[in-house]
Order: sequence, then structure tokens, then C-alpha cells
Amino acid sequence: MKKFLLIVLSTSFMLSTSSAQQRPRTLGIKIGVLPTGTHNAITDVAGVKVGQVTLHEGADIRTGVTALLPHDGNVFQQKVPAAIYVGNGFGKLAGSTQVEELGTLETPLVLTNTLSVPTAADALIDWTLAQPGNENVRSVNPVVGETNDGYLNDIRGRHVRKEHVLQALQQAKTGPVAEGNVGAGTGTVCFGWKGGIGTASRQLPQALGGYTVGVLVQTNFGGVLEVNGVPVGEALGKYSFKESLDKSSDGSCMIVVSTDAPLDARNLKRLAKRAFMGLARTGGIASNGSGDYVIAFSTAYRIPHNSQVPFDELKLLRNDNVSPLFLAAIEATEEAVVNSLFMATTLEGTQGHKVEELPKQKVLELMKKYGRGK
Amino acid sequence: MKKFLLIVLSTSFMLSTSSAQQRPRTLGIKIGVLPTGTHNAITDVAGVKVGQVTLHEGADIRTGVTALLPHDGNVFQQKVPAAIYVGNGFGKLAGSTQVEELGTLETPLVLTNTLSVPTAADALIDWTLAQPGNENVRSVNPVVGETNDGYLNDIRGRHVRKEHVLQALQQAKTGPVAEGNVGAGTGTVCFGWKGGIGTASRQLPQALGGYTVGVLVQTNFGGVLEVNGVPVGEALGKYSFKESLDKSSDGSCMIVVSTDAPLDARNLKRLAKRAFMGLARTGGIASNGSGDYVIAFSTAYRIPHNSQVPFDELKLLRNDNVSPLFLAAIEATEEAVVNSLFMATTLEGTQGHKVEELPKQKVLELMKKYGRGK
Amino acid sequence: MKKFLLIVLSTSFMLSTSSAQQRPRTLGIKIGVLPTGTHNAITDVAGVKVGQVTLHEGADIRTGVTALLPHDGNVFQQKVPAAIYVGNGFGKLAGSTQVEELGTLETPLVLTNTLSVPTAADALIDWTLAQPGNENVRSVNPVVGETNDGYLNDIRGRHVRKEHVLQALQQAKTGPVAEGNVGAGTGTVCFGWKGGIGTASRQLPQALGGYTVGVLVQTNFGGVLEVNGVPVGEALGKYSFKESLDKSSDGSCMIVVSTDAPLDARNLKRLAKRAFMGLARTGGIASNGSGDYVIAFSTAYRIPHNSQVPFDELKLLRNDNVSPLFLAAIEATEEAVVNSLFMATTLEGTQGHKVEELPKQKVLELMKKYGRGK
Amino acid sequence: MKKFLLIVLSTSFMLSTSSAQQRPRTLGIKIGVLPTGTHNAITDVAGVKVGQVTLHEGADIRTGVTALLPHDGNVFQQKVPAAIYVGNGFGKLAGSTQVEELGTLETPLVLTNTLSVPTAADALIDWTLAQPGNENVRSVNPVVGETNDGYLNDIRGRHVRKEHVLQALQQAKTGPVAEGNVGAGTGTVCFGWKGGIGTASRQLPQALGGYTVGVLVQTNFGGVLEVNGVPVGEALGKYSFKESLDKSSDGSCMIVVSTDAPLDARNLKRLAKRAFMGLARTGGIASNGSGDYVIAFSTAYRIPHNSQVPFDELKLLRNDNVSPLFLAAIEATEEAVVNSLFMATTLEGTQGHKVEELPKQKVLELMKKYGRGK
Repeated sequence: MKKFLLIVLSTSFMLSTSSAQQRPRTLGIKIGVLPTGTHNAITDVAGVKVGQVTLHEGADIRTGVTALLPHDGNVFQQKVPAAIYVGNGFGKLAGSTQVEELGTLETPLVLTNTLSVPTAADALIDWTLAQPGNENVRSVNPVVGETNDGYLNDIRGRHVRKEHVLQALQQAKTGPVAEGNVGAGTGTVCFGWKGGIGTASRQLPQALGGYTVGVLVQTNFGGVLEVNGVPVGEALGKYSFKESLDKSSDGSCMIVVSTDAPLDARNLKRLAKRAFMGLARTGGIASNGSGDYVIAFSTAYRIPHNSQVPFDELKLLRNDNVSPLFLAAIEATEEAVVNSLFMATTLEGTQGHKVEELPKQKVLELMKKYGRGK
Repeated sequence: MKKFLLIVLSTSFMLSTSSAQQRPRTLGIKIGVLPTGTHNAITDVAGVKVGQVTLHEGADIRTGVTALLPHDGNVFQQKVPAAIYVGNGFGKLAGSTQVEELGTLETPLVLTNTLSVPTAADALIDWTLAQPGNENVRSVNPVVGETNDGYLNDIRGRHVRKEHVLQALQQAKTGPVAEGNVGAGTGTVCFGWKGGIGTASRQLPQALGGYTVGVLVQTNFGGVLEVNGVPVGEALGKYSFKESLDKSSDGSCMIVVSTDAPLDARNLKRLAKRAFMGLARTGGIASNGSGDYVIAFSTAYRIPHNSQVPFDELKLLRNDNVSPLFLAAIEATEEAVVNSLFMATTLEGTQGHKVEELPKQKVLELMKKYGRGK
Repeated sequence: MKKFLLIVLSTSFMLSTSSAQQRPRTLGIKIGVLPTGTHNAITDVAGVKVGQVTLHEGADIRTGVTALLPHDGNVFQQKVPAAIYVGNGFGKLAGSTQVEELGTLETPLVLTNTLSVPTAADALIDWTLAQPGNENVRSVNPVVGETNDGYLNDIRGRHVRKEHVLQALQQAKTGPVAEGNVGAGTGTVCFGWKGGIGTASRQLPQALGGYTVGVLVQTNFGGVLEVNGVPVGEALGKYSFKESLDKSSDGSCMIVVSTDAPLDARNLKRLAKRAFMGLARTGGIASNGSGDYVIAFSTAYRIPHNSQVPFDELKLLRNDNVSPLFLAAIEATEEAVVNSLFMATTLEGTQGHKVEELPKQKVLELMKKYGRGK
Repeated sequence: MKKFLLIVLSTSFMLSTSSAQQRPRTLGIKIGVLPTGTHNAITDVAGVKVGQVTLHEGADIRTGVTALLPHDGNVFQQKVPAAIYVGNGFGKLAGSTQVEELGTLETPLVLTNTLSVPTAADALIDWTLAQPGNENVRSVNPVVGETNDGYLNDIRGRHVRKEHVLQALQQAKTGPVAEGNVGAGTGTVCFGWKGGIGTASRQLPQALGGYTVGVLVQTNFGGVLEVNGVPVGEALGKYSFKESLDKSSDGSCMIVVSTDAPLDARNLKRLAKRAFMGLARTGGIASNGSGDYVIAFSTAYRIPHNSQVPFDELKLLRNDNVSPLFLAAIEATEEAVVNSLFMATTLEGTQGHKVEELPKQKVLELMKKYGRGK
């Protein structure tokens, strides 16, 4: 009914508009001991694609969709091993029990806002039913994560529509990933500053397997911010429970982890758990009101929906070789969260609410003061 | 676009149309050792209401919605303690992680078909946002269960619409509950025969606490049917894997358990687990392709969304007093499944598929032969 | 200090002494639709061995040890895939968290009484450290299950000693397994009658994979006994909560499931869950005070403790081929419980307590009356 | 048989011998934003007592026992609400499933080395059976945690005996707690330096509830050490996977969390999970070989073993008031780990192995360099 001006910012467009923002690593903030992948992004895991649709309209709409494809093919017919770790379950993630039971992911992943999960799930069903080869599919397990952007976005309006989700899926591509106020991170708030989408990756040395671990986060949570060990939240006087029992620590964090290491669902769940440790390193506290989930998948092999043979023949990384991947997931998650904060920009939204971006200049000074800057 | 003739069968209407069907207990099949509640239905737990909308149109549409309200008030503002047990997670249940984390249910429950979960979840959000007192609510955790009616129903058509869900919620009432081909059970198949909605209850003697346990099931699964211990499936020559590795055992079972016993989420989860034991007693095997979930809630007290005080003052049943409730949940679930089979009627649906009802006359003869009949 | 006459009844001895007892299947009680393995015992899974030591001394000691070896080799060096399902966790099972995390079993399994778990665990460490090839082993995860035989046995005396456990391990053999008042089942009580050790197996037809599933149970729980669907407990007037809130339903059941099907830990956990469904079919209710655990392992492949290569190359049964194994586990568990009851004999123990055996003659008459006998 | 010189260092003795060591906070290292309790120890939670027995004999024995009592009374008769979170389950923790099922702790907690868990569990049974009022107790769930001190300690010798455990229990007291090479931390290694026992606490301001959270850790794990955000591991060139796939990251961490906030088991499990986030902040990675467990209990109320009434009347902190406790648990855990490293001293043990203590002088210089020192 209501006229609706859709502003869709494509990935490439976002990259250009946010050119003023620089990633922390460029600014001399080097998190962790392991090297990054080419783009320092989840797309460094070969085959993984990200597509984002940003809804920024009028005074009230500040939301969007971020979609991740584990591979280029028909994900329903060629499932990938996957696991979900629930850090704190105050969230509306769709699809968790089937992933837990069967150890596979059969749709792309979609992130959006809390009240748009059903819409996104429905769109993933559309997408799956419509793919060639799926004409007889009658059961689909869409996996959709969310955080609550209701402070800046008119979330009750549920402005995300199925076409936005389909568009994000269609636009998905490899290479650099837009960060900050984009896609599902458009309206999020993190540590009291503007949050958003962030991504990072680590590539293990050959001696440790040579695998890549990529992470993408949608940051919308609270706590006491540390940037690479520097007490930014405390120094800037903005952190949870500073004055009293506020709910500023609430919100959520969605974390997606991908790897090309041949892990089964059990070890992917362990990997997912480590990503949550990376979140802890940024000062996140997984407060009561936080919906913190990690979805991890491997691109190393696929589990066909149908098979002529009753067996899956797998070559899986042994338990005692997974620890370096754990470190990689921790580091990439920590950096992805920090990236989301550095790439986000001040935003005004619904009800006149305004959230300032992280004061990067001050932060960089703090980094220097604390021996962590350039 | 497509013209669509909606046939909504109200609860009372269904009761009259299915008057030819008789409940097993009326036919002399007495399951278990505990007495039933007044209606032998989930609504025997005071305050619980059930509403159902049945979609039966043309050759292809055989589906519907079953909604359960834990109480008459604003469920979001006055949450009820709840837990979910995943018997076999090959299903699309919405809302499980938040129930697990917080131990509360904040919306009515809705059951429908697999591909309509997002629609139903969206409708529950509509319902919740629209309730007086919820004007500022920006986060809702809709709980929706499903089974796959795709053999009889054109499930890919997703014919359940939000208005059907809202209608089921609005029509919900106490008293007798329609069973068989109704609501979310319209198109389901169980043990190779027509399944559907079933319900039953148990009331503990005062010496055991005097509490009521009510169960409602949506039956759509396979195995080797036993009716009150009588090997019906084997005797009638219809059971899973009789000939080969078919998938007839797949499907799912949704089980809802309510009680007026003052249990917290931990003990409700234990109660839910026992309902799954009741399913086992009918010959269900929770096959790979089955999405078997139990949602249990208590009506004994409420957890307010907001509170002036930081405490919940609770009077909870002690661990060592819960066992009789376990027996009650087992018996009521077993009987609810059998009820669903007895009350369902032969149905033809999409692609000319036809599923026969349980041949009650033969079953009653078997009951007699096996010493379990009148 | 105290003189102690150890009566160790070897497996073969037990078989002869209990020759008066007959297994239900011999008596015409045929549970389920699938065929049994050769011995209708857990040892039908090739390589699995069982050893039992029975302690029956004076008026007070009625306990013992049942040990299971998954294979003949060094289990620590050649681990087997395994999983544990907690039916009701009021028990003292040792070793569960490591099995859950790593998906492997690295010691034989031992069952004993509740207060002797530490002794048995210590003995398993002895056993493991002493095996050739384990000279440098400094970490061992002993898996020990228990039920509480304190009604008949002076459990506070902790009469099981490490040598008993080692003896059970050393004596372990393939072939028939003693049932009833033997090993860890010596002093147990089940449904108000004498319980004990029971075992059974199922062999799938080639069309369903041809795999064997074996089960061994230590029965010590309550509820409302059904024997192959016949309401024995009700008919004999002995069942839980008949009069009031007694604790007769308490106790526990340990269930061990083995298979030669190539399942990973995830699917073994699903298989374990089905064994619990078999328990439900006997009328067990998993009461508050029950410690009900299922340990499942596969003999199809081994995970070496050390490996030159970083991979495990596995050929695993696909998810959609596991359902017949589920049915097999359900049936074998149901039968194993019934076997334990039929093979147990009346026993008097500590404090003059006496527990009658199941009145088999009456039960057989009931079986006939209910159309289930010969 | 073998002569055995037992050197038991009492708590007070340890305090004096380690007087050379200073706690980080004294040295100007202030972790987190919340104030500590009186002793900055787990004993700041009123009623909690700690007792430790250190075994340091000859060249080979470097192990011990740390015991924690939740209150002064009979813990079996007056259980405390409790929960266990499994960070990484490569460990031998005894007692987890019953705590998970029933939500209570019924014995003191004992920490020791990996292969001595059965001995400690047996001692806890002794202790419990012997307490006045427990004459009829026939079931006890001892909770025992461990880490592997086998690098410095002749762990295969299992030198911890029951009397050591009983002694630790008897000696337990309130007030300051010895840290470093003491009790169960005698022979542990952390981040490549000498680890041990550490403890810390936080006291919430009245506006946040005024509750105390205390933590005690047994540190024996690896990763990339950070001290209050300062990259000590990297700066000193000692961290996991620096050169290759070593197993130096393996080991374990036991974490005990106590609070006087009235939490039920569900919220205690959430609190436990946050302690694991504190571990993450020190650079721990929960490597494959790590057994990382958190046991949390509340002293705010007790659950009597027997009760005249069927109810527990509880006044529980609401979900939306628990977040400050989460922050407290995170901070106290981080500080407790750092305390264990600062208080431990260089130790030589079995096979001539020697582990250096953290080079505090260098660390303090690093702290200064990174703006975190005095």
C-alpha cells in the first residue's frame, strides 16, 4: 500500500561509498599470529560467495539481507557438512535442529533482522524449489540468522521482502566483501557504536595443513570493547553496566565460519565454538538478551542428496590435527568484529535514533598509546 | 492470482462430520493405568485452547493449521515455562533455541506443514505485534512445528496463508478437540494409514499430586504399529522395511505436552522426553527422515516479560515428585497417537494419491484376538 | 581386613546353573519383526566379547562386574567410534564427555554397581596402562556404567575390587552370554521383580544392509511392565504408583549397543537413542531416580590413536540408510530387557531383603491369554 | 609397598613459601572494569572453602588435590544448585550427567590429575558416606575434575591417595587461597610456562545486585598468551603452532565458578559458559587435546535431599538481571588464569623435565610498554 522506495546498494557500490573507511589491518592493527587469506574475507575459502542487499529508505528503514553460498551448485542436491553452535540462544535462528541432526546444510545461509526471519526462510524455500533438479523436492531446511536492528530500523514494519532475499542470493559473488552498514548489518549497533557486517580470514601455513578459515559476522552486541587487547571501551567511557543495569549489552551476534578443511559435523561444531571465543576476545559478554550463534560449514566435500551407493566415502581431518584451525577461527572472528566496527559509519534511523560510528581517530591514538598501533 | 476456494472447517463442524468415527477408548481400548481427564484431551489442562483450520480444496490441497494457546492472556507479556525435546531433528521447527536458552514460551504454538513454517511464524509475529500491550515489542520468538503432508497435499504450493493461522488462533477454544483429518493433520500419513491430529490426557490421583497432563499429536510417521500392545502392523502386513529399504517409515511426529504441574524448564524437558517414550510404545521408530519434536509447557505459573522486581518467586515441584507425571505423559502420548489413527478417514489427494484409514473393524477384531478388546 | 570369600561364577558356570531358566524366545515369545543373530546376544557382532564376575557372598554381597570388549586388540591404540545417549542422567556413568567430544571409545566398557564406579574406572586405567604398546600413555578415559543394587547388596561396603574388574576383562569371550543374576546384574531389581543382565541381537536382511545390532542391558528400573505388548505388570498387580508415590520406579538401566554397521559418532548417538525407545516398549518410564544411559559403538572400523597421516579415511553408511538399524536397536533392547527378567532368579540379600523372580508360569499364561504365547 | 615420603604442604605454609610471588593486581595489572571481592578469591563468596594438598616428592611426584566446599554443612543432605559447561570435552570429569539432569551438586568438588580421578571420586564417596546423617545413603555423585600433569609428574604412578583427598577436604577453609604450584596445580603447565591454581572474584555494585562471583582455575593449557590484552606470548616468542603442529597447546583447564546470586541450574550453566569466555581472553584456544570444563554453583539457597513438602520454594534472579554476573564471571576467570601464571614458580619434575615460570620481570616490562603497567 504505502509507497516504498527501495534503495538497493550493490556490493560494488558499497565498496565505493565506503572508500573513506579503512580496514583496521590497513591502519596497522594486526590481530593474531596467523596470516590472512587474499581478501581477508570469508570468500577466501574457494567457492564461497556473499551477496548483500541494503535497505536504507526515508527516516525509518535501516535493514537488509546478507546471503552466503557455500558453493556454486545446487546446495540442496549437493549438501555441505555443517554445524551450529549456540553461544546464547536468545535468538530466532531458523534451521538449527536439522543441521544438528544430519550434519549438513542444504540451503544457502541468510542473515537479516529478527522479525524478517520468516520472510527470509520463505524466500530460501522459493529459491530451492525453483532450482533446476529440485522439481520433486518437498522438504527444505532454510537456515536464517538474525540480529535485532530495532533501535535504528522500523523493525515492526518488516520491510525485508522475499525479493530482497532472492536478490542477495543472485548477486552473491566471490572476492572482497562489503563491510559496515551493509546488508544484514545496515542497522546494527555494537558496543554502543555503529556495528555491521565484518569479515576476515586466516590461512594456515602448509606445515599446519594449509587450510583457509573464513569468518563473516553481523555485529549487534555489547560488553566492554577491546580492540586487539586495547581497552577502547573503558578508555572512551562507553561500556555495559557502567552506570547501572542497562540493556545496552543486549543485541546479538551472528557468526558464519567456513573452511576448506575436511571436517565432519562434529569437528565443525568444535570449530564453531572457537569462533565464539574470538567474540569473547573483543569484549563481548553474550548478555542475557543476546542471540549469539555460529554456523560453520566445510567446502571440502559434499554429501549428495541422493546416491546410488549407501555409503559416503570421506577423508576427514583427524581430531589431533584440528587445533590450528581453532586458532584460525578465533583470530578471524576477532578481526571480523573489529572490521565491522571500523567500516561502519554513523547512522540516523527510526524515531530519530542516531548511533555514532567508532571514533576511529581516537581509537588509533589509543592503539598507539597501548603499543598496538603503527 | 489463482482462484482459491477456502473451505474452513471449524472445530465444532469437524466434530459433527466425524461423528461416524469413534475414539478408541469408547471402543474398549483402554491404554495405560492412569485415568483420563474430562475430555481426554490437551484442553483438560485448564486454560489451554486449541483452534484448527482445515484446508481441503480441489484435488490437491490437503493441509491446515492447528494452534494451541497456553492461556487466554497476552502470552508475550505473560510467558509460560516451556521446553523442547528433539527426538529426531529432521524437521523445521521454529523457535527451539530461545525456548532452550530462556525456558519460556512467548507465543502460542502453531503446527502446520513443512513448507508453511515461515508463513505460520510470520503470522505469529503479526498476532503478537498486534496484541494490546505489545506496541513496543520488537522481538518475538514464534514456535511452529510441522510434519510433511506432501504425499497427499500439494505442499510445494504453500497453500497455508497467514489468515489461516490467525483464524486458527482466533477460533481456539477449550473443550473437546477435533481429531483425525483436521488442521495440521489434514494430510498426514501414519504407519502407512491415514494419520492426523490426536489428543489425550491423564489426571493423576490426589496422592500423586492430582495434576493433569494433556497431549496433542500431529502424526505422520512410520514403524511397526502396535495398538495397546497388539501387533496391528504385523498382523495386517503393513510395516516399515517389510520388503526392502523403503522410506515409508519417514515422516514426523509433533507432540505438544501441557500440564498444570509447577515444573520449571528443566523438568519440562524431562517430561517432554517421556512423551517420546509414548511414541515408541506405538511402534514408531523415529526413522532417519522423521522430524520428531516434543514441546512441553506448564500453565501453573507465568513469567512476566517485565517486572518491577528482579526475582521470580516460584513454587516448583521437587525432582522426586515428577515421576508420576512422566507416566502420565507416556500414556497420554501413546493414546493420542492411537486416537489420531482411529479418527482419521480415508483421503485422496494430490497426484491421485490415496491413503486408506486404519481398518478399524479389523483392528477391533485383532484387539479381541489379543485379549485387549471389549 | 574382613575375611572375604569370593565366589566367582564364570560365564560357563552360570550358563549351567541357570539351565533351569529358559530364554523367552525359546518359550515362544517372539519380539519384533526382524530375525536375531546366531546367539541372540551382543556377541553376535563379530569381535565383541563379554566377561562377567559375580559376587555372591554371605548374606550381604550381591553385586558384580560385566565387561565388554569391542575388539581383541589394544582398544586404546585402536579406538572405536562411539556415542553415549543420556536417557535420564540420575547416574554416575564415567567417561561420557570425552566420548561425546571425540566420538571414540578407548577402553573396554565396564558395568557395575553405583558406588563401585571409581574402582572399576581405576581398574580400566590399570588395564590400559599395562597393555603392551601403552607404555607412554598418560591419559585414559575409562567408560563405566552402573545401576544401584543397594536393595539386595551391601552397596556401601563397595565389595567390588579392582581384581574383579580385571578378571571380568580377562575372561571376556565371544559366544553365548550369561543372563539374569550375573555380573553387574547380580543384585538388580526390575519392575519389582529380580532383574539382571540381558542380551539380544538383530540381523538385518541383506536388502537392508545385512548388518548386526547387538544389545546388552543391566536392568534395574521400574514402570508398568509389558512383555511383548502383554500388560504383565497390570495383570499381576505390580507396577509403579499403583498405590501412592513410592520410589519403586527408581533404579536405572544401562544399555550397550554394538553394531558392525559403519556409523560415525553422530549416527551412533542416534542409534543409542533408539535403544532407549526399546526400553520404553517394556513399560519403563525413566523415572526421576533412574540413571538410564545408552552406549553405542561400531566395530566396522577403528580410529588409530596415532597415525602417520592427518586423515581418517572412512566409508560411512549414509543417513538415509540407517533407519533399519534403528528398528533393530529398538527390538533388541526390548528383548534384552525381557530376557534379563526371564533369566533372573529369586534372590535374597542384605538386610533380609528378598526379590522374587518374574513368575514365569503366570507370565506364560498371560502371554497365551493375550494371544502372544505358543 | 614402595616407601613413600609424603610432603603435604598446608595452605598456610604455601602462602608463606610463595611470599616472593606477587599477585598481578598488586603489580599494577588491573583486569576488567568491576571491583574484586575482599580476597579476590573464590572464597569471597560467603561459605565457600578451599583445601589443598600438594604432593612434591623426590624427582617424580608433582601433583596434588584441590577441594572446594560450597558450604559448611552436609552437602549431600543440603545440595546446592549447580551446572557444568563442557568447553572441550577431552577430559575425565566425573559426575557431569547427574548435575546436568538434576541441577544440583551433592558433594564437594575435587580437582586432581587425570589418572587420579577415580581415587578422588572414591574418596568423595568415603567422605559422604561417613558424614553424620548419611547412614542410609546408597547413591553418591562425586564431582571430580582434572588436568594432565604428566609432563612434570609421574602420572602413571597415581600417587594421589584417598587420604590426600580427605585431607584436602578437612583442611578446607575460607579466606585467602594459595595459588601457583599448589594442590591440583602443582604440576601443571600453561602457555608453555608453569601453570597452577589461580583464583579471583568480582563483586557487583549494589545497583547491579551486589552479588559476588568467585572463580578458581587449574591451568594446564596452551594458545597465545595475552596478559590483560598485552601480547606476552608473541612478544616472548612462545606460543602454540609457532613452528609447526606441536601439541603444546593441549592440556586442559578446570574452572570453578561460585556465586551468591540466586540462580537456578539453567542460569548457572549460562554463567559457566561465560567463564569459558574469560579463558578465551587469556589467549587459550581450547585445543583438541584440552579438557576444558566449568562447574558453577550457587550458595544462595539449598535443595534438601529429603523434604516434607513436594515443593521447592525459590526466589530466583530473573533472566534479564543476570548479565552483570556474566561480565563478572568473564573478568574473574581471566584474572584467575593470569594469577595462576604469576604465582607459579619454575619446577623440575619427572624425567628431568623442567618448566620455567612466567618471566615476570619481562612481562611487567611488556605491560609497561603496552600501556598496561604501573
